[in-house]
Amino acid sequence: MDMHTLTRDLMAKNQSKIVMLVGDGLGGLPMTPGGKTELETASTPNLDALATKGVQGLSIPVKPGIAPGSGPGHLGLFGYDPLRYQIGRGALEATGIGFQMQPGDVAIRCNFCTLDAQGNIADRRAGRIPTEESAPIAISLRAIKIPGIEIFVEPVKEHRFVVVFRGEGLSGDVKDTDPQATGVPPLDPVAENPASQKTAEVAKEFLRQARELLKDQPKANFHTMRGFASRPDMPSYLEVYGLRAAAIAVYPMYKGLASLVGMDIVGDATTLDEQMQVLRDNWDKYDFFFIHFKYTDSTGEDGNFAEKVARTEQLDACIPAINALGPDVLIVTGDHSTPAYLKSHSWHPVPTLLVSDCCRPDPHTSFGETTAITGGLGQFEAQYLMLLALSNAGRLGKFGA
Amino acid sequence: MDMHTLTRDLMAKNQSKIVMLVGDGLGGLPMTPGGKTELETASTPNLDALATKGVQGLSIPVKPGIAPGSGPGHLGLFGYDPLRYQIGRGALEATGIGFQMQPGDVAIRCNFCTLDAQGNIADRRAGRIPTEESAPIAISLRAIKIPGIEIFVEPVKEHRFVVVFRGEGLSGDVKDTDPQATGVPPLDPVAENPASQKTAEVAKEFLRQARELLKDQPKANFHTMRGFASRPDMPSYLEVYGLRAAAIAVYPMYKGLASLVGMDIVGDATTLDEQMQVLRDNWDKYDFFFIHFKYTDSTGEDGNFAEKVARTEQLDACIPAINALGPDVLIVTGDHSTPAYLKSHSWHPVPTLLVSDCCRPDPHTSFGETTAITGGLGQFEAQYLMLLALSNAGRLGKFGA
Repeated sequence: MDMHTLTRDLMAKNQSKIVMLVGDGLGGLPMTPGGKTELETASTPNLDALATKGVQGLSIPVKPGIAPGSGPGHLGLFGYDPLRYQIGRGALEATGIGFQMQPGDVAIRCNFCTLDAQGNIADRRAGRIPTEESAPIAISLRAIKIPGIEIFVEPVKEHRFVVVFRGEGLSGDVKDTDPQATGVPPLDPVAENPASQKTAEVAKEFLRQARELLKDQPKANFHTMRGFASRPDMPSYLEVYGLRAAAIAVYPMYKGLASLVGMDIVGDATTLDEQMQVLRDNWDKYDFFFIHFKYTDSTGEDGNFAEKVARTEQLDACIPAINALGPDVLIVTGDHSTPAYLKSHSWHPVPTLLVSDCCRPDPHTSFGETTAITGGLGQFEAQYLMLLALSNAGRLGKFGA
Repeated sequence: MDMHTLTRDLMAKNQSKIVMLVGDGLGGLPMTPGGKTELETASTPNLDALATKGVQGLSIPVKPGIAPGSGPGHLGLFGYDPLRYQIGRGALEATGIGFQMQPGDVAIRCNFCTLDAQGNIADRRAGRIPTEESAPIAISLRAIKIPGIEIFVEPVKEHRFVVVFRGEGLSGDVKDTDPQATGVPPLDPVAENPASQKTAEVAKEFLRQARELLKDQPKANFHTMRGFASRPDMPSYLEVYGLRAAAIAVYPMYKGLASLVGMDIVGDATTLDEQMQVLRDNWDKYDFFFIHFKYTDSTGEDGNFAEKVARTEQLDACIPAINALGPDVLIVTGDHSTPAYLKSHSWHPVPTLLVSDCCRPDPHTSFGETTAITGGLGQFEAQYLMLLALSNAGRLGKFGA
């Protein structure tokens, strides 16, 4: 059963404030046997004080053993079953550059390629053309006009760009045009079902005009289209939880993910301190605040244990600014683990802390992977965290009489 | 997958006895930071002795963060997925006064109302007419006769009573007749699907006769009908578990819930001591005993921490009487938490204890919310508790070869 069926039915409104502070990739591993994790190594007096008052546990982002990307990692935290709500590659790429897709939009990942004189693909990535060369070429494709369709073309990096079609009757089930080989021509876009027929036709016309516009380019004289995807049809935070929600993030991907669930993207902070100022500025306007901190993940991906420790301490240092606002529920968690030891996202469950005046505290006085094992929240799937947030905020009525 | 598909297939019969002792609302919270819960404050030497021999853990009534009513709370303990088996309002009201619904019955919550001379509702609750006035009026409606339909009319409290229709071809999808407003006439009962057409017609005829019978009443000169509901179609304990089950409860609601899953309601005890006598009297006749103790919930709802502690000690004191009978499996749990701190049902998982000669004991020597966090049963959804009961009783065969 979809938990949103329950939350829609049981939601109760009040004046409470919920803050979810997400340290991306928060969970870690020891670098040596018997060692401590990044979080356990860091000096985190503020998180430890929260642990003393609150309850901790381990959040399983999707299912045990599954390492998620940023998309499913965050959807789980937001309470959307990440196995049900899958974000197609094109939609994730568009979201990742901060493009706010609307229902009915279809997004497509495009790669510039080099065609030879016979029209066969000589290079599937146009010589990995540098961004400073490719971006203006991508922008030149904004000249393409197709009646009844609004077209967005956004440069990404090197040979990559994103195209979004907006119009009536579009659906995302269209096959890739990249033949995954050289010496053969690109494929035509082919609809996989009748509902996507119009999208295939629009894509074909786009490609026809692009071929003409690009024909004199030395490297990027054509492009392929991959990962056609509709915007995932996700109900909003307001609809399923009754929460006016704000996202305070620095990076486009996380703003994009938050916008998919109907959060407002507030402020244009570039540091955690600025994010705290945005939080203060918007405190009265929203019920729920998602605050995203990227660097616990990026330092983990770099395999830089010491730097991840330092970034974790930076995350800890923002807690007093949040506490000063008096949130009714404060949650500190991560969308997944990114152990420096693995230099990648991992499947390890994520230390998660919840503080409210009606949580049932556990005996722990510090916050880390080891204490979380015996924390009062136990191990739980991330998709249930929002239920705990709502109930601790007094925003969820009783189920059944 | 429905667990009953498994239990039907794997059930094994033997002479074992299972006792499930339910302290309603057993779980609690500390009243002050760093304090103990009600269960942890109570002196419970018998429960602690069971904890030493047995294994404990935390039962999640429905899903994390969901506070259940008595209905879903008990259905979970009985092993029936509480999200699948939802009890409609009329059926719960009938069940709550101990009416034993049969398959095909439709129950309806009725409110006496006052109509003005034009037939518009002047008071939706007939002036909250006191029970001693309303009960005889409700009983007078037993004079209503409709061919082919057996009709039950049961007083509840003040302006409320319950009507149950029994007959062929009835279904519960009929709209409320209460317009939720005054100055307008009551609505006609309208079927929401063809299967409920007959119910709507029966209800209309019931209302026609009731209007005639009530027309000279000063306050309760008509009534509305709300929450039409069929008996939830639940398989019985005997069918899904192979258990002859007895319920030993004091309050009608819990007798009603037990009867929904096919338990026999035995005895008419009004105290825990009398319940123990009923247990002894019926020991040879049944395989499974559900013993319900209300006062850990009602004292929690009252916000009376000290009294909940005292009632918990009373629950503890009945353990020797159960032990004396030598049950093969003894479970002590609750249908949900009712912390005195919150004065209401809550979502916090419920300390649960299981003792059998083949449970895998954990190191704990006392029973409480904190020890349960690190108990051997872990955190589990209540709907799996019956599987543990059956396997510990040797009543569940191996799944697959």
